[in-house]
Amino acid sequence: MGEKIMRIRRIAEIMEALAQIPHTSVLGVIEGGKLLSLSLVQRDKALYSLDPESGKMERLTKGFVSLPSIPPYFSSEIYFARDVSSGKELHKLYKLDVNKKEEEEIEMEPMRITSIVHSDKVFFVGSKEKNTIYLVEGGKVEEVASFHEVFSITDYSQGLLVGSGFFKSPRSSELLLIKDGSVEIFTPKEGSVNENPIIVGDKIVFSSNFEGSPKLYVLDPETKDVERLEYEEIDRFSPYEFSFLWKGKDQELIAIAKKDGRSRVFVDGKEIKGPLGNYSTAFVVEGKVYATFTNSFTPSSVIELKENRFIFKPEVPEVLKGVVKEVIFRKIRSFDGTEVPTFIVLSSLSEVPGKAVMLVHGGPWAEDDDRFDVMTYSLASMGYHVIRSNYRGSTGYGPEHTLKIMGDPCGGELKDLIEVARSLKGEIAKEMCIAGYSYGGYMTLCALTKYPDEFKCGVAGASVADWEEMYELSDAIFKGFIELLFAGRNDLFKERSPITYAENLKAPLCLIQPQNDSRTPLKPVLKFMEKLNELGKTFEAHIIPNMGHALRTVDDMVNVLMPMLVFLEKEM
Amino acid sequence: MGEKIMRIRRIAEIMEALAQIPHTSVLGVIEGGKLLSLSLVQRDKALYSLDPESGKMERLTKGFVSLPSIPPYFSSEIYFARDVSSGKELHKLYKLDVNKKEEEEIEMEPMRITSIVHSDKVFFVGSKEKNTIYLVEGGKVEEVASFHEVFSITDYSQGLLVGSGFFKSPRSSELLLIKDGSVEIFTPKEGSVNENPIIVGDKIVFSSNFEGSPKLYVLDPETKDVERLEYEEIDRFSPYEFSFLWKGKDQELIAIAKKDGRSRVFVDGKEIKGPLGNYSTAFVVEGKVYATFTNSFTPSSVIELKENRFIFKPEVPEVLKGVVKEVIFRKIRSFDGTEVPTFIVLSSLSEVPGKAVMLVHGGPWAEDDDRFDVMTYSLASMGYHVIRSNYRGSTGYGPEHTLKIMGDPCGGELKDLIEVARSLKGEIAKEMCIAGYSYGGYMTLCALTKYPDEFKCGVAGASVADWEEMYELSDAIFKGFIELLFAGRNDLFKERSPITYAENLKAPLCLIQPQNDSRTPLKPVLKFMEKLNELGKTFEAHIIPNMGHALRTVDDMVNVLMPMLVFLEKEM
Repeated sequence: MGEKIMRIRRIAEIMEALAQIPHTSVLGVIEGGKLLSLSLVQRDKALYSLDPESGKMERLTKGFVSLPSIPPYFSSEIYFARDVSSGKELHKLYKLDVNKKEEEEIEMEPMRITSIVHSDKVFFVGSKEKNTIYLVEGGKVEEVASFHEVFSITDYSQGLLVGSGFFKSPRSSELLLIKDGSVEIFTPKEGSVNENPIIVGDKIVFSSNFEGSPKLYVLDPETKDVERLEYEEIDRFSPYEFSFLWKGKDQELIAIAKKDGRSRVFVDGKEIKGPLGNYSTAFVVEGKVYATFTNSFTPSSVIELKENRFIFKPEVPEVLKGVVKEVIFRKIRSFDGTEVPTFIVLSSLSEVPGKAVMLVHGGPWAEDDDRFDVMTYSLASMGYHVIRSNYRGSTGYGPEHTLKIMGDPCGGELKDLIEVARSLKGEIAKEMCIAGYSYGGYMTLCALTKYPDEFKCGVAGASVADWEEMYELSDAIFKGFIELLFAGRNDLFKERSPITYAENLKAPLCLIQPQNDSRTPLKPVLKFMEKLNELGKTFEAHIIPNMGHALRTVDDMVNVLMPMLVFLEKEM
Repeated sequence: MGEKIMRIRRIAEIMEALAQIPHTSVLGVIEGGKLLSLSLVQRDKALYSLDPESGKMERLTKGFVSLPSIPPYFSSEIYFARDVSSGKELHKLYKLDVNKKEEEEIEMEPMRITSIVHSDKVFFVGSKEKNTIYLVEGGKVEEVASFHEVFSITDYSQGLLVGSGFFKSPRSSELLLIKDGSVEIFTPKEGSVNENPIIVGDKIVFSSNFEGSPKLYVLDPETKDVERLEYEEIDRFSPYEFSFLWKGKDQELIAIAKKDGRSRVFVDGKEIKGPLGNYSTAFVVEGKVYATFTNSFTPSSVIELKENRFIFKPEVPEVLKGVVKEVIFRKIRSFDGTEVPTFIVLSSLSEVPGKAVMLVHGGPWAEDDDRFDVMTYSLASMGYHVIRSNYRGSTGYGPEHTLKIMGDPCGGELKDLIEVARSLKGEIAKEMCIAGYSYGGYMTLCALTKYPDEFKCGVAGASVADWEEMYELSDAIFKGFIELLFAGRNDLFKERSPITYAENLKAPLCLIQPQNDSRTPLKPVLKFMEKLNELGKTFEAHIIPNMGHALRTVDDMVNVLMPMLVFLEKEM
């Protein structure tokens, strides 16, 4: 009696523990030498001032923050975007005064803000019918340029605004240069992938694969000469990607380079060693290097490198300690020879082989790597081994791997997942369910409808059920995203939509859908439910109000994780 | 941090406690003088043999039981119906051998079984396109008669099968007599309400209001003479209704009579005193009276009356003890003078006035009374005062009150609830939400869309959103039910459907819907969600798989209560 409830108490206990973890990252160095940090110290993600000596944090923003920006060194002003639409991701820009802790709302129409540049001037990209660059001045906004394509802006200096995006093809990325109102799209070689441009002195530093594997280059914005930045230590590491380029207070070049799910920080080409894992940001002031660090056992922390001193490191609650026994990294060969880099997270609460969940990341342009992941921990805590695969389309393994998905969603990347699942059955998994959020939810629906015998059950959060309807409901940036993904083959929408294959569903399915989701909206998911119901298919569903695609608060996290864990406990 | 999760742990703790309560009722006396009981001892409702001396229970059925029947005294065979459709309420009839504990499935098409008579012969009413009486013989079934109207069968003896139903009008009830294949609909007076016929000797005993308040009568099936059974003690009690008529082993007449939320047991007109509360069944063997008893503080128990000895009385778990401070019964005058008998359950965890939930019962032909109610306890345990009103349409207060709803759903009965809510605001409730399941879910939707400022929030479980579509999806018995409720005014379907007023919704709403519900099906609720979504209305929703309208198991209970309690905690 009451088994189900015992499980719910266990699940509640785990989530209580997970919710207590104050995941923290560093976003710059502000006035007084304090670190600007984004943290989940209280119930939402907000900006804090972090003292690099004492580790003391002080909250700066009253409300939550949707998208922060990196401020200039020692700035007393900070810009960030905040959702003003209960999760629909219609944002406004805010200016925060660090000293007064006062927020000023910029006068603008709410829209989806996707990147912010805060330098001598402030710009952001906002998306409605088009993707538009706005200049922010005197508390107001002014249009600079508009594009149909998907892009981001990354830096500004002395009249030059830079960024990068998919301007010429879904399989290449070009630099965007805007000076004195004139727009230039630059590539050193047609078809190459050029990213992360920043302005150092009067030059543009960026990463590019135009000579093979990704390397760093300097572009003269006047002459358009491109010169390679040769750094022996970076070459020796031979990274697959550069995930972060920035500059120190004295124009030191900061590069974070990535390989096999881990990354390293280089300052002017010299590696600044730290613990093994992942670095997502780094800043340099007077020889000190502050970075955001995480690995599979360490929640997102702020570390002073060189000294290897944690300035802020969240404690892992007792009930979660030791639930992950081991993390195995393995490249698994897929049907066409593509290697699928996979993290196998073994729960210490189960035998091997045991119950396993294939947890598929979103994006698809994102990555599962050596980091502390809340969803993974929640699953491991319930005794599931977790399989996290970087299917084609994932970042972190070079542009070739990332771009292989273009034009073929619910195709090759799904086969990658199926191949990985098959190769681990028996060895790691006695039985396996599949779960994911966003693109991971889409993969779950694809897997259950196109390979109905492969998984014991599935949990699809904020999933894509029908590309046709979703495209109609999308704003410019997400229309652009879908066109990129399909490489313009919009005629494939129906063929690549799970709703088309609903009749194949056999395994128990749990749908979790935020009501205000403006990326993967509720409407097509409701239609999917109707179709499943008409076909007599069994499904569970949870529609979450006042929540959009992004998990903004602890409650959002609980609203998604709770039904997932309860469902898995029932079905596995 | 983690407040939400603390609440979830508290909710899980409460549900664990509630799930441990083995609610038990007695359904007859079987071979060896054991009591046949229906109990939730394990995770589902099943039949048990209960020793009247030791109180020891022994499980008789392997699986769960949807609808049991009363067997003849000292029978070794028991008939019951079981859902064979994951909650869709398509049943099959089963014969249970008490000694061998073996179940035999009767050869039949699955259908909704609504009443079973087990005497010298076995009959049941099954509903598909029509409501049909079947005779069960030799493991097979044979059609006896079919009706469009809603009715039930209650007894059989020596070739005569009796029952009662709404044969002539939605505002009266007639006796059904079937002998030698000939069907007769009998009423002592046109428009009167005649119910509960049983056969005692060669006469029919029944209750009727044809001379005013409900009394007991004897009908001679040959001459059709009707004679009043004058029992002084019953007359002195002057009940509003008879809720149970049956006979003892030696043909004693057992009557359970009801008034103001409590009932009394009479044997041959003499009251058999017991604790104050409610008796739902009673059986007499050799001077001993066994009954099912409950009150607001006692879960459904089996008691030997006269001696007032509990044979089986479920323990109330520690965490639930004392959460109900007081139960107040009050008749509250509605807009047209109708008295609305209301139970006000005060939580000991809150001040008065405090947070309150108006918990609306289903039916509408059902009743909130002095009984241990799991939903009420779950709310009181979370610190809510609970208001339970017997709006017009409810049973327990005489046919006039019950029949007042006919032809006017989402009308007078809704006003009753609104009047009660208004009269208790300030005195009992600082703020009030409304919640209900089935017809109570319908009332919740009606209240939130027709009186959008009245309640702070609402939880609608297994609700009616659209009568038009629901009617189309219904089988004969539920088409008949809807026609009764509307008194044939099917033209009012649209006007009385919450979907028509969806645009009025203001308060936060939580929809909880079993997927396999064949009474209030998912399809119209999904359409309601679509409409709310199009109108930009905020709602939460939970669709529960493998579950129908009826709560069959502990897991079903948890699946409904859990989201309700979490939602209320969030909104109040």
